[in-house]
Amino acid sequence: MEKMTNKIEPRLLKGFRDYNPTEQAARQDIFQKIQTVFERFGFAPLSTPVLEYKEILMGKYGEEGERLIYSFKDNGDRDVAMRYDLTVPLARYVAQNQNQLVLPFKRYQIAPVWRADNPQKGRLREFYQCDVDAVGAVGAVSDAEVVACICQALEAVGVTDYVVRMNDRSLFELIARSFLDGGTEDLEVMRAMDKADKIGKGGVLKILEDKKVSQDAMNLAKLLLAAGTGPAALDKLADEVPDAASSVAELRKIISLVAAQGIAAEKIVFDPSCVRGLDYYTGMVCEIMLENNPEFGSIVAGGRYDRLLETFSATGIPAVGMSIGVDRLFEAMEALGLVKPSGAAKVLVMNLDESLAAEYLALATQLRGKGIATEVYYQAAKLDKQFKYAESRGIQYAVIMGSEEKEKGMAQLKDLASREQKVVALKDLAAAIG
Amino acid sequence: MEKMTNKIEPRLLKGFRDYNPTEQAARQDIFQKIQTVFERFGFAPLSTPVLEYKEILMGKYGEEGERLIYSFKDNGDRDVAMRYDLTVPLARYVAQNQNQLVLPFKRYQIAPVWRADNPQKGRLREFYQCDVDAVGAVGAVSDAEVVACICQALEAVGVTDYVVRMNDRSLFELIARSFLDGGTEDLEVMRAMDKADKIGKGGVLKILEDKKVSQDAMNLAKLLLAAGTGPAALDKLADEVPDAASSVAELRKIISLVAAQGIAAEKIVFDPSCVRGLDYYTGMVCEIMLENNPEFGSIVAGGRYDRLLETFSATGIPAVGMSIGVDRLFEAMEALGLVKPSGAAKVLVMNLDESLAAEYLALATQLRGKGIATEVYYQAAKLDKQFKYAESRGIQYAVIMGSEEKEKGMAQLKDLASREQKVVALKDLAAAIG
Repeated sequence: MEKMTNKIEPRLLKGFRDYNPTEQAARQDIFQKIQTVFERFGFAPLSTPVLEYKEILMGKYGEEGERLIYSFKDNGDRDVAMRYDLTVPLARYVAQNQNQLVLPFKRYQIAPVWRADNPQKGRLREFYQCDVDAVGAVGAVSDAEVVACICQALEAVGVTDYVVRMNDRSLFELIARSFLDGGTEDLEVMRAMDKADKIGKGGVLKILEDKKVSQDAMNLAKLLLAAGTGPAALDKLADEVPDAASSVAELRKIISLVAAQGIAAEKIVFDPSCVRGLDYYTGMVCEIMLENNPEFGSIVAGGRYDRLLETFSATGIPAVGMSIGVDRLFEAMEALGLVKPSGAAKVLVMNLDESLAAEYLALATQLRGKGIATEVYYQAAKLDKQFKYAESRGIQYAVIMGSEEKEKGMAQLKDLASREQKVVALKDLAAAIG
Repeated sequence: MEKMTNKIEPRLLKGFRDYNPTEQAARQDIFQKIQTVFERFGFAPLSTPVLEYKEILMGKYGEEGERLIYSFKDNGDRDVAMRYDLTVPLARYVAQNQNQLVLPFKRYQIAPVWRADNPQKGRLREFYQCDVDAVGAVGAVSDAEVVACICQALEAVGVTDYVVRMNDRSLFELIARSFLDGGTEDLEVMRAMDKADKIGKGGVLKILEDKKVSQDAMNLAKLLLAAGTGPAALDKLADEVPDAASSVAELRKIISLVAAQGIAAEKIVFDPSCVRGLDYYTGMVCEIMLENNPEFGSIVAGGRYDRLLETFSATGIPAVGMSIGVDRLFEAMEALGLVKPSGAAKVLVMNLDESLAAEYLALATQLRGKGIATEVYYQAAKLDKQFKYAESRGIQYAVIMGSEEKEKGMAQLKDLASREQKVVALKDLAAAIG
């Protein structure tokens, strides 16, 4: 260590953050509650690595997305990349293990992903996603189950003020086809539309103008932005768009099957301007926003991607999934006062006399054995300092035992909030703390 | 998606692995149990990012360690690195937030780290560490608490056949000083010794021969490897090594204070050949192996590092911590039959008739609301296929409801293990499943 003389400034990379104990305890509580809901729906956990061969990730997120991938050459000169989402690694996993898996393969994964995005409010470069996907699943029941599962997960963490904006990519394609003669302008429109929640309708049209798309493409975007939302808008499109009947019927079915799972019907809103930006969606797409706080953007997104598996496997496998962007959700919850301060240890065994260290530790062991989170102050410091420490940690009780108390098999138990103090036999301490 | 025509072979990078649902459920169970113990000891969670400025990590792990760091230039031309352990990011965090933190800062972190090690049995390039550290803690109580906390975490996951090999870096330095006149040969000896569990005593001496160290350094290594272990060896060194009295007394105290926390005394063994490889340790060091399965190597390692914080902060802060290498632990647990198969969903609501989809989903919602993990088969497939799926997922009960049963408000409940089947009123289903 003698060589470590040059101080290094302790700092974080832009777009990255620490979560202190209060924040992290709250996040872990959120993860736990979401996980419980996912498991109730029969989704099972999968873990894939953070690093993948770069070629696994390329060609899935569009040019704009790909630019955000953290990629580099590893020590063995391999092109590797940090995962951009949890969906493509899942597709890789399923293709790789296709012969062993019984379909549908229903998995969840709660893990971080990396995107070298421009850091701004809520746009971290490392953030957690909580994903559920059903691979090998077709039909409205699976779509509706995934949506309801995510809604219940949100409700489990106390978020009830949400709205699900739902659309269908095949419906979007049909509408686009009625404006455009092939080409890739549908993708331009789709990607511009996907930014609507951040830049507004005007912003979407501005992007398309800047890209010098055709008047037909502009008209398509204008129609979608002006079409309105909800059942009436869906009925109208069903009447006006050629061949839309089956897409519309499927959407209606999905929406009704979400409601059958106890999600309030008014929370699921057809919205033709919801198209999502990723290339790989093929059917139902949706995103979830906070109804009264749309400024947090979409905290959930997902949809059906029946052709992604084709990139890895000769036999295509249909799939549907959704993802909670939990750091953005957390930010929203913090702002809305939905994050409860976490409890640290409940008890501090104070250190009055270093020769009693073994007894203090034994006492703490006894309390921990009863499930009571307990700290021992490490040194025989002044009591004031120890009380101050307890206070800073939100600790509720102090156990005070000098050699005299110890001889009698007793200790003082002090409630640090009420300042009440009483003498308790050591063997009764756990019960007295409750 | 039309452009995705070239198939990409689905494959994993060498040294990386997926954990399938059975494995991952077991790992999550391990993480949860370890976390519960950590929290009982009053350690609070911290989350730091995977990527750090490269300079934050450099100069801490020795040349050999540094070569294993995944580092690269990011899109903004910054030198960044994936974390190599959880300790250095913790030190960075504490130095960066020193003015806000009340010491001791007791934190845990359960998260992956990356090392471009030569992949071999148990040497993954991405693996999880479960760390507890007390920053700002001095004295035997804190050392002993960290050790006991880790031991209890191992016991909580069912690992009881462990032995803690403990030493003190200052004692090692004193012994080294009696052989060597300054220089850096002590580091050579230390790093070679650290490989003893993998390459044996002969391998350690071979490394030192190859490095052409002095005869004094060879003699030092030989003494440490031959000194024996346990209280007698400690007594002998106390007698023979000049100035060793205070280091020896501190070690004895730590060992007795671990025992005071209910850890069997024979599990904590003084071992002068345990020196650990990392440069930053300054006091107590220890590692934990499986007594009857030393082939799994050290599944836990840690120690006191009173000078690491100096690299980031003008005011040094003492610290102690330990880390469970949970993937190696998991591998050992799997080999020893300690990993229990996990439960997926408990109930499959079978799909006999797609027009009843809303009813099936409502039924599943009802069961989930009672805390019963439930799946709905997504399509009205042949019953055989659905039973086969249930079996593959380890599902215990099938709920079978056609339109006739539905009219009567009943369903068949089939126990898939015993093949028993009975008719149950829908409202009583949850109770019948129990």
